[in-house]
Amino acid sequence: MKRRDTMRNLSMLIDFYEITMANSYFTHNKNEEAVFDLFFRSVPDEGGYAIMAGLEQAIQYIQELSFTEKDIEYLKTRKLFDEGFLDYLRTFKFSCDVHAIKEGTPIFPNEPVLTVKGPIIECQLIETMLLLTINHQSLIATKTSRIVSAAKGRAVLEFGSRRAQGYDAATFGARAAYIAGAVGSSNTITDRDFSIPALGTMAHSYVQSFDSEYEAFTAYAQTYPNDTVLLVDTYSTLNSGVPNAIKVYQDYLKPRGFTLKGIRIDSGDLAYLSIKAREMLDEAGLSDTKITVSNSLDEYLIGNLVEQGAAIDAFGVGERLITSKSDSVFGGVYKLAALKHNGKLVPKMKLSDNVVKTTNPGAKKLYRLFDKDSKMAIADVVTLEEEIIDESKPYLLFDPNFPWKNKEVTNFSAVSLLEPIFVKGQLVYQKPSLKEIKAYHETQISTLWAEVKRFENPHPYYVDLSRKLWDLKQDLIEQYSKN
Amino acid sequence: MKRRDTMRNLSMLIDFYEITMANSYFTHNKNEEAVFDLFFRSVPDEGGYAIMAGLEQAIQYIQELSFTEKDIEYLKTRKLFDEGFLDYLRTFKFSCDVHAIKEGTPIFPNEPVLTVKGPIIECQLIETMLLLTINHQSLIATKTSRIVSAAKGRAVLEFGSRRAQGYDAATFGARAAYIAGAVGSSNTITDRDFSIPALGTMAHSYVQSFDSEYEAFTAYAQTYPNDTVLLVDTYSTLNSGVPNAIKVYQDYLKPRGFTLKGIRIDSGDLAYLSIKAREMLDEAGLSDTKITVSNSLDEYLIGNLVEQGAAIDAFGVGERLITSKSDSVFGGVYKLAALKHNGKLVPKMKLSDNVVKTTNPGAKKLYRLFDKDSKMAIADVVTLEEEIIDESKPYLLFDPNFPWKNKEVTNFSAVSLLEPIFVKGQLVYQKPSLKEIKAYHETQISTLWAEVKRFENPHPYYVDLSRKLWDLKQDLIEQYSKN
Repeated sequence: MKRRDTMRNLSMLIDFYEITMANSYFTHNKNEEAVFDLFFRSVPDEGGYAIMAGLEQAIQYIQELSFTEKDIEYLKTRKLFDEGFLDYLRTFKFSCDVHAIKEGTPIFPNEPVLTVKGPIIECQLIETMLLLTINHQSLIATKTSRIVSAAKGRAVLEFGSRRAQGYDAATFGARAAYIAGAVGSSNTITDRDFSIPALGTMAHSYVQSFDSEYEAFTAYAQTYPNDTVLLVDTYSTLNSGVPNAIKVYQDYLKPRGFTLKGIRIDSGDLAYLSIKAREMLDEAGLSDTKITVSNSLDEYLIGNLVEQGAAIDAFGVGERLITSKSDSVFGGVYKLAALKHNGKLVPKMKLSDNVVKTTNPGAKKLYRLFDKDSKMAIADVVTLEEEIIDESKPYLLFDPNFPWKNKEVTNFSAVSLLEPIFVKGQLVYQKPSLKEIKAYHETQISTLWAEVKRFENPHPYYVDLSRKLWDLKQDLIEQYSKN
Repeated sequence: MKRRDTMRNLSMLIDFYEITMANSYFTHNKNEEAVFDLFFRSVPDEGGYAIMAGLEQAIQYIQELSFTEKDIEYLKTRKLFDEGFLDYLRTFKFSCDVHAIKEGTPIFPNEPVLTVKGPIIECQLIETMLLLTINHQSLIATKTSRIVSAAKGRAVLEFGSRRAQGYDAATFGARAAYIAGAVGSSNTITDRDFSIPALGTMAHSYVQSFDSEYEAFTAYAQTYPNDTVLLVDTYSTLNSGVPNAIKVYQDYLKPRGFTLKGIRIDSGDLAYLSIKAREMLDEAGLSDTKITVSNSLDEYLIGNLVEQGAAIDAFGVGERLITSKSDSVFGGVYKLAALKHNGKLVPKMKLSDNVVKTTNPGAKKLYRLFDKDSKMAIADVVTLEEEIIDESKPYLLFDPNFPWKNKEVTNFSAVSLLEPIFVKGQLVYQKPSLKEIKAYHETQISTLWAEVKRFENPHPYYVDLSRKLWDLKQDLIEQYSKN
């Protein structure tokens, strides 16, 4: 049967209300310049930081965004849309400015991680896919970062494809995991397409399909003498699996000048079994043979295994990473921050009974302040677009919810985090390679104090507002409250 | 910019170990007929039943499965694979038998929901995608079934695209939700491609982009006089939103012969606000205007709202449905059940210290017994492939873990649940339409007793083994334990 060469047209992967709003704007001849902020309000798992990911796919989506005749034909069937609007879609050309925080950067609640400025119809049409893309990959990068941190230098392997929430979750989830510190993935497509090392050797079915475990191991060693990693828990890890692995090394690999590269344990008490297996391997002269474990692992189980002194070189982590099982939602939102009115950009804000949910008005910038000596991150400051933080002068930080709590910082560098990505619809961003993103993540995560990174009651990292932004917000709160 | 017409080639979305095993089998000239079972061990959320979904996409995957030169070129770079094996992949042709339970059917732990019989290499190569596809869609269908059941007849709308775990999660998640009772989705692509009604009207940004809420509502009514659904909580639901909605009805819609189709409330105390809004609408003669609510809903919150007598016609359910937040993993596994040896299919079993994890050996069939009078499902029985349950005779059910607990059933019909899908690689299954699957789900879910469907401590539905299968399993346990 011939493969169906479907084009991956995702322009209709859009919440229907974006289109109904766009059509209504269009028919009211209302397409003023707007500013939207993408931000999130809390870190999954009550963690202290999240990791930005998904920008590359968001860029690709925007670059490819167009509406095919198939899309238009479908929209016509809904009998809701103006012909002129459908023509507008037919010739759609993206013309907004987009700024975003680079992938791999630690990000925090209530700061803009991506901003869009341009005609409100365009801003609205890209909302769903921006949120979907950034929410998903940031979720998995954030979860992976926790798992990698628990592994304290031991390798973390992404093994979750079969339990992922769909094909893209398996693929882009593996990408996000790699950014945040996983060293490889079981998902082969991410090796083909992103050069993320694909890993894996055998399932229990392979061992079962031979008359004995010894025969299965020998057969595998014959096929991959340079790369023999054996799954040792099909029958009994210590009574059969590890002894057979050692025997195959002695009978087959060693005489031919090869070694036993590794074993994998997928069940049982992984601390006890790994320690005993390590002893047996060492005794057989196999101190370089690596031990990988798997079986519903997450950051807490890994932390416990490390603490117990388990003899583990690598953790294969599946469903709990690829679905972020403990907290499966990254709650990014996309809110109107300003709208042009009579030629002037007017700040907009969404009031809420819940103070924390009140948005930050206006077109904004985001700075991260680093201590010049320790190189550690001190705080993030959200400012108005035109503000520049002068590193040569002391800067007064204050808590936006408790403004009397303040702190003057000196001897700092201020890095502007929102990079220009598109200018007037043109891509201006030099996309880094995935390896560069991964390396950048490693440098950036090391600028966070351990207090921010710990799992239990992490210290809230400061995300402050500049005085000007804070004043504007108070003015608007007062003004809106009068209505 | 020209759209990149990428072909959706998912053949490398495969755990790497499937390929290393396949290559090893190939080079050992070992490609005997095998039988694999796909089953799961526990229902998410400790529920009493799950819903089968994803079969259509699994079929499509198998039909399109081939390995392109790009795949082969990539595999060559790994320097692990035999040239003959790569040639085998180049000319790969699927030749297995596949049986599966129809989409929309309630399914239970430890029964085969899909089986594959054929050359072991082929069985292995489709494992990852079968699991990924069935696990994901069954997860979302199962979660949706709970939510729909809590809504007690009120409409459930799938609103989760922006928080889904990737693009396929948004799209196929919406498909699975529709099967299990959602009436529509915010995701437009599922309307274009699957005819699932796309729903949605406006975001807060639309209301904010006008000088007043009244102007925004009027503008929307002008664009969609036949379809005016207004988001009423941007400022104050009861003081501003609902009064403005009524005013726009009176000032604009009513004089032109239109009505106000609906309002949506997205924040606040949804029980209180909906009841008050209902009163205000009724008083204004708008008793047909529907009230939709949204805001982090799930089956428990919906159950509470229904219990409190909230005046709600439809629930928009987002992140907690599309990621199955309370339990984000469907744990389907794929295990070897039999392997041909010297021309004879030999049952295989994976022993486990955990009795419940010991697999069921051999090629099998699955029957569901229905009471002829009540039409309700009594139990499922897993049998050997050659067994036929004779409806004319009493049938002795017994608990496979506690075989002394038994029960004779009479006056039943026995339905074989595993439908032939592929025979020798050829599709023989008449794929039902999505509407047919949805309707079928509704008939099937009604055959389960309320005790099985309740959320707290549901009654475990019986999944029993035939005497012959049970005997075989005991024999193998004894035989394996001797080794």
